[in-house]
Amino acid sequence: MYARRRSDHSHVPVTPVEAHEPPYYAAVFTAVRTENQSGYGETDARMEDLVKDVPGFLGMDHAQTPGGLGITVGYFRDADALTQWRRNAEHRAAQRRGRDEWYQSYTLHVAKVERSHGFVRAQGPQRPTAG
Amino acid sequence: MYARRRSDHSHVPVTPVEAHEPPYYAAVFTAVRTENQSGYGETDARMEDLVKDVPGFLGMDHAQTPGGLGITVGYFRDADALTQWRRNAEHRAAQRRGRDEWYQSYTLHVAKVERSHGFVRAQGPQRPTAG
Repeated sequence: MYARRRSDHSHVPVTPVEAHEPPYYAAVFTAVRTENQSGYGETDARMEDLVKDVPGFLGMDHAQTPGGLGITVGYFRDADALTQWRRNAEHRAAQRRGRDEWYQSYTLHVAKVERSHGFVRAQGPQRPTAG
Repeated sequence: MYARRRSDHSHVPVTPVEAHEPPYYAAVFTAVRTENQSGYGETDARMEDLVKDVPGFLGMDHAQTPGGLGITVGYFRDADALTQWRRNAEHRAAQRRGRDEWYQSYTLHVAKVERSHGFVRAQGPQRPTAG
């Protein structure tokens, strides 16, 4: 059901989208879905393809608790990139269908990232844990 | 393993943290965990209790793809609230242990929310879906 090439993809190594140089934008979408998910998967995959064509799109993270909350975070270089995505006609149609059918509730937070950092575990055997 | 009173809680109705009046801050933490999760659940629950004592803490969303990405988003009224949480000694110790043991990789994005909105489905029977 979940689309290809996102960071919840189960058959490739999963890595969070890396920290970019601030400032950039994050669109945090938190949602609980209905029981009616007819057509969701196809639309989700299509949106994922479309957003990559937006100049300034930096990446997307997604996590889904089974039967619970889903969180999608899209990262964009600047406000213009996010505006372009928001105004995309096919995206707007998908949002309408989401409200009509797929979402029980959601919140969207659009935020300007002021600082960020990442961590990647060093290769090699994991150090033994104390206690 | 996942802590109580977060929005991935499975035995109460799940709802995303609502939109607050901007500006406010969102700390977006995206992570992939190691196979060594000894002690994680207890620490996670303790952090969840601690953060609620921070004046200006607004709420937290969490989603976890099984075997994949986890995303936690903490919302704070202002930068001072987030600074207070960042400087908490017990939180810092937990972060160190996370890097030593629990996380394969993570990214933290600290962002100022400029706009937000929410949607909650109206009560009553769901409208029939076309097509």
